[in-house]
Amino acid sequence: MTTYLPPLDDMRFVLAELAGLDQIAALPGFEEATPDLVDSILTEAGHIAEQALAPLNAPGDRQGSKLVDGVVTTPEGWQDALNTLTEGGWNGVAFPAEFGGMGLPNLVNAPIQEMWHSANMAFALCPMLTQGAVNALLTYGTDAQKALYLPRLVTGEWTGTMNLTEPQAGSDLAALRSMATPDGDAYRIKGQKIFITYGDHELTSNIIHLVLARTPDAPPGIKGISLFIVPKFLTNDAGEIGARNDVHCVSLEHKLGIHGSPTAVLSFGDHEGAVGYLIGGLHRGVECMFTMMNHARLSVGMQGLSIAERAYQQARGYARERIQGKPAGWTADGKTGIVNHPDVRRMLMTMKSKIEAMRALVYVSWAAIDGAHSNPDAEQQAKAALMADLLTPITKGWCTETGVELASLGVQIHGGMGYIEETGAAQHFRDARITTIYEGTTAIQGNDLMFRKLLRDKGAAVEGLLADMDQVARQATTLGGPQLGLIGAGLATAVAQTRQAVKWLLDAAAPNAALAAAAAVPFLRLMGTLVGGYQLARAALVSQAKLAAGTDTPDFYTAKLTTAQFYAASILPEVAALTQSIVISSDLVMALDEPLL
Amino acid sequence: MTTYLPPLDDMRFVLAELAGLDQIAALPGFEEATPDLVDSILTEAGHIAEQALAPLNAPGDRQGSKLVDGVVTTPEGWQDALNTLTEGGWNGVAFPAEFGGMGLPNLVNAPIQEMWHSANMAFALCPMLTQGAVNALLTYGTDAQKALYLPRLVTGEWTGTMNLTEPQAGSDLAALRSMATPDGDAYRIKGQKIFITYGDHELTSNIIHLVLARTPDAPPGIKGISLFIVPKFLTNDAGEIGARNDVHCVSLEHKLGIHGSPTAVLSFGDHEGAVGYLIGGLHRGVECMFTMMNHARLSVGMQGLSIAERAYQQARGYARERIQGKPAGWTADGKTGIVNHPDVRRMLMTMKSKIEAMRALVYVSWAAIDGAHSNPDAEQQAKAALMADLLTPITKGWCTETGVELASLGVQIHGGMGYIEETGAAQHFRDARITTIYEGTTAIQGNDLMFRKLLRDKGAAVEGLLADMDQVARQATTLGGPQLGLIGAGLATAVAQTRQAVKWLLDAAAPNAALAAAAAVPFLRLMGTLVGGYQLARAALVSQAKLAAGTDTPDFYTAKLTTAQFYAASILPEVAALTQSIVISSDLVMALDEPLL
Repeated sequence: MTTYLPPLDDMRFVLAELAGLDQIAALPGFEEATPDLVDSILTEAGHIAEQALAPLNAPGDRQGSKLVDGVVTTPEGWQDALNTLTEGGWNGVAFPAEFGGMGLPNLVNAPIQEMWHSANMAFALCPMLTQGAVNALLTYGTDAQKALYLPRLVTGEWTGTMNLTEPQAGSDLAALRSMATPDGDAYRIKGQKIFITYGDHELTSNIIHLVLARTPDAPPGIKGISLFIVPKFLTNDAGEIGARNDVHCVSLEHKLGIHGSPTAVLSFGDHEGAVGYLIGGLHRGVECMFTMMNHARLSVGMQGLSIAERAYQQARGYARERIQGKPAGWTADGKTGIVNHPDVRRMLMTMKSKIEAMRALVYVSWAAIDGAHSNPDAEQQAKAALMADLLTPITKGWCTETGVELASLGVQIHGGMGYIEETGAAQHFRDARITTIYEGTTAIQGNDLMFRKLLRDKGAAVEGLLADMDQVARQATTLGGPQLGLIGAGLATAVAQTRQAVKWLLDAAAPNAALAAAAAVPFLRLMGTLVGGYQLARAALVSQAKLAAGTDTPDFYTAKLTTAQFYAASILPEVAALTQSIVISSDLVMALDEPLL
Repeated sequence: MTTYLPPLDDMRFVLAELAGLDQIAALPGFEEATPDLVDSILTEAGHIAEQALAPLNAPGDRQGSKLVDGVVTTPEGWQDALNTLTEGGWNGVAFPAEFGGMGLPNLVNAPIQEMWHSANMAFALCPMLTQGAVNALLTYGTDAQKALYLPRLVTGEWTGTMNLTEPQAGSDLAALRSMATPDGDAYRIKGQKIFITYGDHELTSNIIHLVLARTPDAPPGIKGISLFIVPKFLTNDAGEIGARNDVHCVSLEHKLGIHGSPTAVLSFGDHEGAVGYLIGGLHRGVECMFTMMNHARLSVGMQGLSIAERAYQQARGYARERIQGKPAGWTADGKTGIVNHPDVRRMLMTMKSKIEAMRALVYVSWAAIDGAHSNPDAEQQAKAALMADLLTPITKGWCTETGVELASLGVQIHGGMGYIEETGAAQHFRDARITTIYEGTTAIQGNDLMFRKLLRDKGAAVEGLLADMDQVARQATTLGGPQLGLIGAGLATAVAQTRQAVKWLLDAAAPNAALAAAAAVPFLRLMGTLVGGYQLARAALVSQAKLAAGTDTPDFYTAKLTTAQFYAASILPEVAALTQSIVISSDLVMALDEPLL
């Protein structure tokens, strides 16, 4: 099994050249984000990921989290790992200094979170969920709630969870049944929640659950849902731990992957009712939850990137070490690793080029979030918000689908050894498989993209992005040369095809919700493939310029150009197929009578 | 968890209308294969698959096979299941009556094997490997070897294995080191073999290993390899069990899936050397092994179909039962299953259409094998052999890659429940993942297709198949109507694009082995996608004719037309993208210096 080596060079490149760290660091409040500080933070985070988190990944998978006599235990080493993050202040990178955070942009947090998830996704879910809870409290908490919970969640002294799903209501929040009955200043919560990530554990002295429930007289559907803070242990205002609240872990799920992460069924109010505190105002629960969810969706999109990077490193290491046969066209003397077999190389290049496309897309998305939150210029702020809204479902949907695909290629590169659990490739394949499901399935991301991001503004935001791509394609074509020429032509063709798909969607699908929904996921895949190619084309332009100007690291830029070219030639053609499929197959999706399936 | 329902209607349709059961049954030696007999055999096999094998699938996965104190135990129920097959003569469906078989065509055996693998792939591997050993013995065994081993293997009283892989030699047979030293009439075998499916177990009184090894003075490389029969227990000529042979199970692998199937590390000759008997002549081992392997490859291609069918039934059942939300465009009153959500339906239609394409391709391939073995007309025989050779790597490579893809869609349709092991969808995803690896990875199938099936005859066999497709496309276009029109046009376009890819491969890749190998898997995917569409177009023509002539089962043919149309509109456009990718990206696959990966 290979270890994990943080890809710091590519991270720095994407931060500086594609995601605009300079501009983000210049926004008010981010004065701390100097290049030196960012650099030293990334280096230190890399050490932690490599040395403290990555070695626990495979043992944690084998051991799993367990529920015994009502107590959830996490794998060996989890406690030390969480302590390391807490002591270093790593949970608070992107949170305000007044609550103990570092006050840095989300963009700087992005590579750090990428490393945690690459190193050990089952572990990294714990701080990820806590960050979601912090975001909800920052936006909707009262001053008292902020004062009580935020310092402890930002440091990581306590952890947080999101409690949405109930057995009868998966993606359909309107069907929630958990009840919150007023009881003085608080509420008493009763109900059962499932799929609660890190819903119980002994790693911290308290767990703060954020729970969606209905009040007795609430309107039906999603308009009657409110959000409640339900601590595992009640506390006084100073945060001192008091009585156990009436929320209990009933069972842990037996899952395909992320075995180290305890996925709990939580029962609220088996006895007197769990004490909960309203947050964000009555019946505003869904709005509050979406605040957490948009961050969480980008984080899960990043998991797709992270697990693909880890699978890539594992496969590349194996392909270099494994000597077998003589590659087609191989003329050098002696034996060589399977890395020189053309099909193995094709798989590695597919992984590498898609990973670099995903990294750029993910970081650019986080930069848009920072701009949306912090740009003092109203027009710039609105533009960033629009971009963040558009990119979030694409990033979540495409990076997770791609993560599953690449983790599967990682297994394939290993041949028979990939199927043996001890090798490690299979774990990435199992772990990756959840990412297209939780925080909204790919279909939900597709519908978000289709209905709220494309059709609602009649394609304006998408056309804005396509116009940016036109410019990059023109630049690449104008600069020319065999590499940029192919990249520019490939991008221009893909953009033109996408406009066909968009036109058809605006004409034919806009008035027909079933048709739009049938085309939603193919359109999401199209947009992800396209935006990935666009980001790599931007990277190629920068690289060409660096090489022309002279650089100390020509290898990095040469590799970037070749990788971008491979993507344009090998991956971007899928845009044509997806356009075709959207236009001619969408009205066939529901054509077969359901009983004939 | 849903049960397994044998898809007998589609099986009968493919046998009769696409794979030409009539013509195959008319070949000499297959007189038994009357329509009535075939029909009653399929019905009975369906009962066994549904009632005896399918219920053991999930428990067998949880329990797994175990090695304790040198003894391998298989999951509960395995023994009864194997006894059922043995008592019914099911292991010998396609083997000669003189050795206890039913003497039926491979084509009739195809749906039976499909059912075994759908019902319980981990179990069905046991009879599958035995059939491989029977084929080798039928072709290469001496009369004495046939008389001793065949009756017992054909009935299933004993089982067989294939022993190729060694730790240092996965796909590279030239690197084999196991030694066979002459010892009287026999040989003494020493060496270690890995990944031996059903390499040890207590289900039968003996296991017949077919083992590749070198003799002391053999030439290096694959030309020095011979094949040996190494029984677990030595016997006299009457087959009575005698002393334990010196072959022992050292360990069982801990695998991602097919937990019920014991994958053994076998050690030959730890003591006095395992007694082995030469089969097929000195240094002809690789040739013998390929006889087993071609059958095994089609069988594994079928596993892709089988696991996809099971995953489909599981997902369709869940999608009908699971009530959630209101589908886009849904106007009916009341709640409905997620089967009516357009994206869920899109996934189900993708599964259904690809499964029907795979079933046709697999059965047509087996029919070609029958023709190649049994057609008395030399020209017809040669034509069938050419088709079998061409289709084998496509069937193995494309059906297994598609099986993995569809098993993953099956998980996705379940949402969060898909990730929970108890649901059952995850097992299919794990089980499917081995199929693109064993019996030659997808890359090996791609190279076989590229070098031996496309380039060697300068594209003649492929062009023959494309010409057949032209005809079908023309027929569909001529008959017209919205459904056949789209199907005909889609197929014609895809064939034209494929000719572009083929022309480029013959021109540019033929003289450049590395380029050809880089294009091999994309070309295999292209050919699989195309041949699948071709088979469904044939099915659509038949269905249109049946509907026009009047039929008792119009629903079946209506569904078939719609399914074929969906495939033509949604899946066939990938041929264009693959052509593009082959032509413009193949020379970029090796463009990046290996250290820069």
